[in-house]
Amino acid sequence: MTDTTTTTAGGPTDAQLAAGRRAYELDRAHVFHSWSAQETLDPMSIVKAEGVHVWDADGKRYLDFSSQLVNTNIGHQHPKVVAAIAAQAAELCTVAPQHANAARSEAARLIAELTPGDLNRIFFTNGGADAVEHAIRMARLHTGRRKVLSAYRSYHGGTHLAINVTGDARRVPNDDGDSGAVHFFPAYPYRSYFDSATPEEETERALKHLEDVIVLEGPANIAALILESIPGTAGIYVPPPGYIEGVRELTAKYGIVYIADEVMAGFGRSGKWFAVEHWNVTPDIITFAKGVNSGYVPLGGVAMSEAIYQTFAQRPYPGGLTYSGHPLACAAAVAAITAMREEGMIEHAAALGENVFGPELRAMAERHPSIGEVRGAGCFWAIELVKNRETREPMAAYGGSSPEMNELVGALKAAGMLPFANYNRIHVVPPLNISEEDARRGLAIIDEALALADAHVVS
Amino acid sequence: MTDTTTTTAGGPTDAQLAAGRRAYELDRAHVFHSWSAQETLDPMSIVKAEGVHVWDADGKRYLDFSSQLVNTNIGHQHPKVVAAIAAQAAELCTVAPQHANAARSEAARLIAELTPGDLNRIFFTNGGADAVEHAIRMARLHTGRRKVLSAYRSYHGGTHLAINVTGDARRVPNDDGDSGAVHFFPAYPYRSYFDSATPEEETERALKHLEDVIVLEGPANIAALILESIPGTAGIYVPPPGYIEGVRELTAKYGIVYIADEVMAGFGRSGKWFAVEHWNVTPDIITFAKGVNSGYVPLGGVAMSEAIYQTFAQRPYPGGLTYSGHPLACAAAVAAITAMREEGMIEHAAALGENVFGPELRAMAERHPSIGEVRGAGCFWAIELVKNRETREPMAAYGGSSPEMNELVGALKAAGMLPFANYNRIHVVPPLNISEEDARRGLAIIDEALALADAHVVS
Repeated sequence: MTDTTTTTAGGPTDAQLAAGRRAYELDRAHVFHSWSAQETLDPMSIVKAEGVHVWDADGKRYLDFSSQLVNTNIGHQHPKVVAAIAAQAAELCTVAPQHANAARSEAARLIAELTPGDLNRIFFTNGGADAVEHAIRMARLHTGRRKVLSAYRSYHGGTHLAINVTGDARRVPNDDGDSGAVHFFPAYPYRSYFDSATPEEETERALKHLEDVIVLEGPANIAALILESIPGTAGIYVPPPGYIEGVRELTAKYGIVYIADEVMAGFGRSGKWFAVEHWNVTPDIITFAKGVNSGYVPLGGVAMSEAIYQTFAQRPYPGGLTYSGHPLACAAAVAAITAMREEGMIEHAAALGENVFGPELRAMAERHPSIGEVRGAGCFWAIELVKNRETREPMAAYGGSSPEMNELVGALKAAGMLPFANYNRIHVVPPLNISEEDARRGLAIIDEALALADAHVVS
Repeated sequence: MTDTTTTTAGGPTDAQLAAGRRAYELDRAHVFHSWSAQETLDPMSIVKAEGVHVWDADGKRYLDFSSQLVNTNIGHQHPKVVAAIAAQAAELCTVAPQHANAARSEAARLIAELTPGDLNRIFFTNGGADAVEHAIRMARLHTGRRKVLSAYRSYHGGTHLAINVTGDARRVPNDDGDSGAVHFFPAYPYRSYFDSATPEEETERALKHLEDVIVLEGPANIAALILESIPGTAGIYVPPPGYIEGVRELTAKYGIVYIADEVMAGFGRSGKWFAVEHWNVTPDIITFAKGVNSGYVPLGGVAMSEAIYQTFAQRPYPGGLTYSGHPLACAAAVAAITAMREEGMIEHAAALGENVFGPELRAMAERHPSIGEVRGAGCFWAIELVKNRETREPMAAYGGSSPEMNELVGALKAAGMLPFANYNRIHVVPPLNISEEDARRGLAIIDEALALADAHVVS
């Protein structure tokens, strides 16, 4: 494998390395981890991060092609955002949500400026899950209805209602059978649930299916439809042309609140500020988190239309949280958005998608029989791996992993990459401000490692 | 009224005042607020905060007897915590939860050191609501049962499951009728649901009632009992002697996971690190947030027993969040806990409760016919106001406000206090490190303002 690692120049200090080793020991003694069997874990101790790189407690450097959990859109330790956090900390760390504060007001103004249409009112939360929880509450109270439509193969968050609305396998152990969530089949051309032969056919059939679900569930019962504009962890399966426009039309037709979940796709990830902009659609609500401040300080939120806002103009909104509009988190958002604008990161991400990731990944798909499909936009791409291109048998089953995928992920890490893997997919989701050179370096690591996956292809 | 305000020395700069006025305008245009009818609001714009004081956009100074939302236990802008945030920001703002990190590991170690018994495994969340959501999930999967017992007159968080478990009036518009929450009547001597004449009788009857509920709901259906060790926003009604011990016994007897919600009471608020320590009880799970780092950076979490942990040792825990164990938030926790220890804040809070708040509030209750009861511990006290001491008719109805309470709150603010009010109560909840002088100054403001409340007393 190509060796792109270093243990010397610009790497961690001896003190950082020692702290990293101690961090590992204490982690194993005291830290309970997300989504895991605790005693099967062997976490990497991250001791330093900068731009597109992180370093482990052995001093080994990795190219971060994961953006952690697809949140560090501006890369690690952006100096302007770090400085803004320090400045806000020195000025005013926190105030309660009932008061007003300059950092929160300015963050709300900037976000309102970026969101499409009249989504100019911002409710801040701590992350994506509670943004989804509150968006659903707003929709239920706005409509007086309870059910929520959402897609299979989706992810909307880890709290109880958010995970029940979620469509991926992580819902299953949490499914309470009466959350009000009703799942429909999404448009997913590569693995069509509608036996479609073309993207156009997929759009037509998926929209007919969605309308059938609405009619049969009863529009009068349906408060909201929540949909990732480009589904993220579930596979970055970009909707085929016309699908999002059709969803907007159907929800408007039946008086259903359309919640565009942009927690992962938003804030530039797909080469637009919000992924719905690819289709010039304005939903009723946008949920966001992650890229809003690259996760430097926990923050999420809900941007809502004037109509939703008016429902709560004179009637109390029955929801809230202690850290809503947290000044430190909001100051980080102001700095991150400003840096993204000033440094042209969204345009850069779009150009990388057009000129580097798209062409290079498609060329890799030609070379590697293990690649079933590549798809994406901006810095938001999936490589879907299969054992057989004809049958499209995945390299790992839905909801699980496999020795083949584990081998591939191990090889990527050994070659100095921090990858994002899910089931039978490797996602290419680096920071938006990655250089073309680093982008190509990462693609070369994947290209070389895919020889391992190719060896498992059965023709 | 006593004028304790200043608009000069140590106050905000002209630039801060101007920013505060602009913050107000942008707030009204773009910020959606918690728990409110949006167009009825007139938020105070906070432009500066230091120790026990905040300043508004007119340059007026307020003594913060609210600790914001009872979270700034170390006061505003503690220099050691501000410095720790700046240092961690410069070092490493964020890593994904699957990795290990020194700030997270050290926070987990410190918290495990403080929690009672074998609650040595820490799952970090963004705040109290998601801590409660995950604690319930752990209990459900640990027991294989679904129902959750919780008290009326309680608060457990704003997300859907947490608000359904909540017992106060804010649940009502969110009650889905099938969350699995079953509410029981708490021990609340002043407004006994059991016609008790003494605290001893209240304990006995409330525990009998609780066991009746358990038996009649069916222990085999009940995953967890969640209880604020000292209920917070619901009234700081300290449980009578023997009650918490009885809850521990009953939950153990029936194999029910006992979740002590210490989101507000924890981290020193009541003069102990955790309020359960007043009764030497070890629950199965403790939920925390707020005081863990005074809310300087959003953080919450779940501390669990070894038995709960073992359930997820080899079996995946099906929950998580992007910012679990966020380094910046955890670094703030390490610094806050260390400062609280080094500066003896818990001991100071306990002494203030013993020597200042307790005696002074009891003396005020003698003087003011509008005071029905005062109760609390440490820096965690409630003044329950009534129109009539005989009938105990509250100064505002359960779930609402009243002109009398609004008048009182207005007078406190005019006199330079930021108060915490709920229904018919004023809570005395300043930072734990408030000086005795400032504590007495705040009590004097309340003492003087209570003349207004006294005028509404009907004998």
